[in-house]
Amino acid sequence: MAEPLSPCVELTRLRTAAPLVHNITNFVAMNVMANVQLAIGASPAMIHAREEAAEFASIASALTVNIGTLSPEWLAAMHDAAAAATAAGRSWVLDPVAAGATGFRRRAAAELLALSPTVIRGNASEVIALAASAGISAAPEMSGKGVDASDPVAAAEKAADALARSSGAVVAVTGVEDYVTDGSRRARIANGHALMPRVTALGCALTGVVGAFLGAGSPAFDGTITALAYYGLAGEQAAQHAGGPGSFLPAFLDALAAIGPEELERGARIQTTD
Amino acid sequence: MAEPLSPCVELTRLRTAAPLVHNITNFVAMNVMANVQLAIGASPAMIHAREEAAEFASIASALTVNIGTLSPEWLAAMHDAAAAATAAGRSWVLDPVAAGATGFRRRAAAELLALSPTVIRGNASEVIALAASAGISAAPEMSGKGVDASDPVAAAEKAADALARSSGAVVAVTGVEDYVTDGSRRARIANGHALMPRVTALGCALTGVVGAFLGAGSPAFDGTITALAYYGLAGEQAAQHAGGPGSFLPAFLDALAAIGPEELERGARIQTTD
Amino acid sequence: MAEPLSPCVELTRLRTAAPLVHNITNFVAMNVMANVQLAIGASPAMIHAREEAAEFASIASALTVNIGTLSPEWLAAMHDAAAAATAAGRSWVLDPVAAGATGFRRRAAAELLALSPTVIRGNASEVIALAASAGISAAPEMSGKGVDASDPVAAAEKAADALARSSGAVVAVTGVEDYVTDGSRRARIANGHALMPRVTALGCALTGVVGAFLGAGSPAFDGTITALAYYGLAGEQAAQHAGGPGSFLPAFLDALAAIGPEELERGARIQTTD
Repeated sequence: MAEPLSPCVELTRLRTAAPLVHNITNFVAMNVMANVQLAIGASPAMIHAREEAAEFASIASALTVNIGTLSPEWLAAMHDAAAAATAAGRSWVLDPVAAGATGFRRRAAAELLALSPTVIRGNASEVIALAASAGISAAPEMSGKGVDASDPVAAAEKAADALARSSGAVVAVTGVEDYVTDGSRRARIANGHALMPRVTALGCALTGVVGAFLGAGSPAFDGTITALAYYGLAGEQAAQHAGGPGSFLPAFLDALAAIGPEELERGARIQTTD
Repeated sequence: MAEPLSPCVELTRLRTAAPLVHNITNFVAMNVMANVQLAIGASPAMIHAREEAAEFASIASALTVNIGTLSPEWLAAMHDAAAAATAAGRSWVLDPVAAGATGFRRRAAAELLALSPTVIRGNASEVIALAASAGISAAPEMSGKGVDASDPVAAAEKAADALARSSGAVVAVTGVEDYVTDGSRRARIANGHALMPRVTALGCALTGVVGAFLGAGSPAFDGTITALAYYGLAGEQAAQHAGGPGSFLPAFLDALAAIGPEELERGARIQTTD
Repeated sequence: MAEPLSPCVELTRLRTAAPLVHNITNFVAMNVMANVQLAIGASPAMIHAREEAAEFASIASALTVNIGTLSPEWLAAMHDAAAAATAAGRSWVLDPVAAGATGFRRRAAAELLALSPTVIRGNASEVIALAASAGISAAPEMSGKGVDASDPVAAAEKAADALARSSGAVVAVTGVEDYVTDGSRRARIANGHALMPRVTALGCALTGVVGAFLGAGSPAFDGTITALAYYGLAGEQAAQHAGGPGSFLPAFLDALAAIGPEELERGARIQTTD
């Protein structure tokens, strides 16, 4: 019988390991993601040139890949880094930003999916689009929206299940209530606050938190769930000190740094089902 | 007789439409611009690869183009996107950052001007340099400054008038007191605060606010004026809570999110002349 | 006999000159560095295309070069800009981020070192790696860390001395207590706070402060020491108002803007030895 999920254990592991995380992410998210990773106790590095991406991916403890402000050169480096991470036995996380918005993005997301990410994290629209791009489920109606989710999390659960079974990845759909599945197990995480989608790149930075837990050695399903609960709990605490989306971000980073393992255990609102 | 300008009507339109705005902007501004657009109620997307820039420009409600950290590859994508936006009947805004600083920049700004932006927003030095690069008015004295305005707004009014008449664009010169013209009508906006130029990329992010109003369907002259008054009013409110340029930015985003249409109508200090 | 070092004189010089500083830096640091330079009273410009980097470097008062998110194209522009700055009699600062992490980075750092930077600023691990890459001292043990210093400042003092004598640059090793040398003179600066390394890119932005002092005309040794004391003092003041790394950054920018020359003279904790 498997150990029951313990956010306290996973956060303790992260704080002890202080893992070096290699991120290839978009220009909007880079600074926020680095600050989020520093706040939680990880060590971020942003490295994207083909001349060094693979070499660095094998040095780091985990890799995150985000297609937000994609270009062909960066996509090639993402391929190199993902392959090197896998070859070195490292976990990597795919964040398929706006995966359905253009043909370039649909192809890029499907190519990266074929490189076997350990975890996929996206909003409902992105998970639906990624599953469709990979031919796993039906193509969605175009919503006319960019990087923001226009679909509720519940609408993406079937696509997430299919994507997890087909790819072997843990799939996390984040939104008002998050949904995580590895194809057989399922969890819902109710932490979070309405100001979070009003701050740019918080979803992208969350992918960096998932990567940090993987880099610290958390099992993919447990680490992902813990990352989501921790992030949402920090959002709840930050909202108590925020007068709007601007003052929310500094308070959020403070909360991420301040929350301890036992506080997380008490505050996490996780529901798991097999 | 035309409807009189109503900031209340324009901001209500923006909040209702929540337009998707496509931005090709500089690396310094991307995060701030996205946060500003989220705070005002718009949905930002940063997309710059040639493989998708034109496709995305025709999906989005409006486009903004900023030459701050320019490269030849990005300039090509800006051309593609601007042409696609125009072809799809979308408005687009040109922000000619440091247009006079180098030969590369003078040529780039003149090429983009030839693609018929709906609105041009810059500081006095940039508007003077852009008009000169396009051969519309005399070349300015080099000021030896980079992206900061070394000329007062008043010094750019003639260049702005000539640029508006020649290009068909609404031209906004921002500074202590902003000046907006469509070549026949003129407006001056007195909102703002001295801390605003002490925070990087606030001018760039303002271009994103103009784009959001256009994407929501505001007429170009009215939308631009409303954007400037709204932005300046938020700056005035933020300054009351700020201890310097660092604490100003969070307070500014909070104010942008909090200001309602009627509050804007009361606080806007706009003087129009025909 | 040389004038004794006076932080008051150097900061007065900076505030009077308000120098235009050309920065080629990494994507994570760009926004923070620009805000830091604005807060201290300088005028930042981020320009990296080969089409204009050399031209702009000869217009600006000083140049800073940071290899954080390096690519071959940007490295070529760094070469052009550094050569142009030197040819125009301008000072330039090298920030060898993660210089030891990959082969690409070791070669890039050694190439830039050969272009005679006026000042080199890095953490202990970076200075040790740079000296080794240039064949000046023995190669370090790989620490498995990315951009964060895993070595204490004291461990890098010999490498810094050798690097300064070999290159002619002033070398600054920053950490808990900073160390600055020009090969014959030495200084230790004890200002600073433990929250500073918890905020991303504060080291990178410090390089921009050094560049601003050089651009204002400070002698390299005195300007570098003053920059480090000023930065650390602002950190000490910010920490009094901060609840964690998130609220630290706005308070830090406020403190940089608020500290005056005489306050710096009183608060600077500098120890110099010949």
